[in-house]
Amino acid sequence: MDYAATTPVDKEVLDEMLPYFGKIYGNASSIHTFGRDAFDVIEKSREQVAGIINSKSDEIIFTSGGSESDNIAIKGVAYKNKDKRKLEGNHVITCAIEHPAVLAVCKHLEKQGFNVHYLPVDKYGLIGVDDLQDAISKNTFLITIMFANNEIGTIQPIEEIGKIANEKEILFHTDAVQAIGKVPIDVNKFNIDLLSISSHKIYGPKGAGAIYRKKGVKLEPLIHGGGQENGLRSGTHNTPGIVGLGKACELGKKRMEKDVSHMKNLRDLLIENILTIEESHLNGHPKKRLANNAHFRFTAIEGESLSLMLDDKGISASTGSACSSQKLQASHVLLAIGLKPEEAHGSLRLSLGRNSTKQEVEYVSNTLPNIVKNLRNMSPLWNK
Amino acid sequence: MDYAATTPVDKEVLDEMLPYFGKIYGNASSIHTFGRDAFDVIEKSREQVAGIINSKSDEIIFTSGGSESDNIAIKGVAYKNKDKRKLEGNHVITCAIEHPAVLAVCKHLEKQGFNVHYLPVDKYGLIGVDDLQDAISKNTFLITIMFANNEIGTIQPIEEIGKIANEKEILFHTDAVQAIGKVPIDVNKFNIDLLSISSHKIYGPKGAGAIYRKKGVKLEPLIHGGGQENGLRSGTHNTPGIVGLGKACELGKKRMEKDVSHMKNLRDLLIENILTIEESHLNGHPKKRLANNAHFRFTAIEGESLSLMLDDKGISASTGSACSSQKLQASHVLLAIGLKPEEAHGSLRLSLGRNSTKQEVEYVSNTLPNIVKNLRNMSPLWNK
Repeated sequence: MDYAATTPVDKEVLDEMLPYFGKIYGNASSIHTFGRDAFDVIEKSREQVAGIINSKSDEIIFTSGGSESDNIAIKGVAYKNKDKRKLEGNHVITCAIEHPAVLAVCKHLEKQGFNVHYLPVDKYGLIGVDDLQDAISKNTFLITIMFANNEIGTIQPIEEIGKIANEKEILFHTDAVQAIGKVPIDVNKFNIDLLSISSHKIYGPKGAGAIYRKKGVKLEPLIHGGGQENGLRSGTHNTPGIVGLGKACELGKKRMEKDVSHMKNLRDLLIENILTIEESHLNGHPKKRLANNAHFRFTAIEGESLSLMLDDKGISASTGSACSSQKLQASHVLLAIGLKPEEAHGSLRLSLGRNSTKQEVEYVSNTLPNIVKNLRNMSPLWNK
Repeated sequence: MDYAATTPVDKEVLDEMLPYFGKIYGNASSIHTFGRDAFDVIEKSREQVAGIINSKSDEIIFTSGGSESDNIAIKGVAYKNKDKRKLEGNHVITCAIEHPAVLAVCKHLEKQGFNVHYLPVDKYGLIGVDDLQDAISKNTFLITIMFANNEIGTIQPIEEIGKIANEKEILFHTDAVQAIGKVPIDVNKFNIDLLSISSHKIYGPKGAGAIYRKKGVKLEPLIHGGGQENGLRSGTHNTPGIVGLGKACELGKKRMEKDVSHMKNLRDLLIENILTIEESHLNGHPKKRLANNAHFRFTAIEGESLSLMLDDKGISASTGSACSSQKLQASHVLLAIGLKPEEAHGSLRLSLGRNSTKQEVEYVSNTLPNIVKNLRNMSPLWNK
């Protein structure tokens, strides 16, 4: 029940990766046969990644994961013209419920003298297109809005945002880590300039990711060195990781319709079952949400305890995102959609995957009500 | 013959990694059992990495590889106090034959207003300790000198450098990517503050690395986000990669004596055989060199052609480092040790590994002379 945090590597993906650990292990920068074999398979992987977002393969840069991709995209654009930047071009627009990898980069840019505007979201987690229009100034050089939220699953109006950014000649980056494989993405149709991809959220290996960079968009590299990836990301290529990401994208594209339909059915069943619990509520948008995301809040419940009790019953679930779960702060996403801190702390994310089964959903549906009941019996906040 | 470019993943290492792709695949930041299992194995790996350099495990930060480690170490220290930096603390000392991941970072720092001093090296590739002493000013905050050179294998006087840095209260970083597993390293004894490690040079997987950071050394993170690795390196942990790096370090430490003795014997045989070729010379230091490195130059030979002819005979070798082999420029290392461009272009690196055999060395020793002879017959520069 925690596929949004990470996914297992698909058997087909791992099989594809295995030869590149010990057999075809060349350094892709070497000119001999061993090296060229690695180089060739990396280029094949690049096409597979491009395929899932309808980009050209030379618009794909391989990275170590989604966080690095977000960092390269945002800092890369910001720093590229930093020296030329005077009063103009110091303004970034993002939103309040971005992933920490985007928010922390924006906070860092603020320390460097950039101005960042954080768009608010409505009770479903949606930004307002009018708010975006209003926030744009002549100094705005980048809009970075996530495709779909990692906690509550809300899908933003990406096509409309892209249209506005394009009209105003502002670069548009989107963190699509949660959306890839679950929402059809066309970077051209959506006017996306930069897009972040993570491998381990789509049944590929951890430690691999990519960034789509529209041809012509200039980036300052984050990691300098040997000049791999056209000088934009130095470091010996992680061949097995890249092969895994490529295969995961190929499978993700091929299976998207089937996966989405499967997850949606289970999700809707899960939501229906869980909402029968007294004083339970769905967080996020009822329709504009990821096929695999169900997010609830329960009055007078402490999500951390809920999560641990579920774990005890063999159910892995999350109170917020894995990336911030060890911090014990109320989720910035849930606060931004207007929940009170105690409501945010009483929330639970259940996220499904390709391998989820109806039996699992039924097991959770049967187990959760009793846990909620027991916890409420112990809670001084529950007065019924 | 190109183990300096990369190594295959050791069978024992891969076996250790495999469960973490599909079975124990949790996100190490999750609080449930799946996540805690990943967290625990990462902490075990941290101890294994610490073991090979005699550091404490909480001084190890996991990264995506050697290049990222070099970038974090150098930029991390430079940017940490950037805002406080006025006239003081803007001076970095490095040397002319560093890996591109260090040199490119230094060039980048120069663009940001830092002063970088590039120490020259002698004909063996050694820096002069007196030169280092002379270069130090009151503004010097960092010395970054590689442990052993990736092209010619020369081992620097690390203990002396550490002593000087320590006396002057200057931070000392060393890129130990080529030295790990081949030279006993003790970060305490050598007064090292920061040290870069790459997994794929020591029979671990590509896409994994680490940085040793002495307790108390402050770093600005390169990748901001979820706050993993004590806030110093955000991004979901690459559990299988980290497990592989850990195991590779454990094996590397255990096998070091045996590996080094094996490689040294083969290397010395190789050097003896190859130097029987007319007008052939050894590049690098005769004694202070890595156990696995043999580096030659041949008059009137174009190394690129030599490399391709060797490849044709099933021998993978390199003209320079893999990281810069696609650039067709004369190696900055070979120019720095005083070779003319044509001598640099006529050079060849043969690097051995744990799995190298006497048969392989003999095959190369029998094959190379004929190739050199044939190439010279076609060369207008060969007048004999």
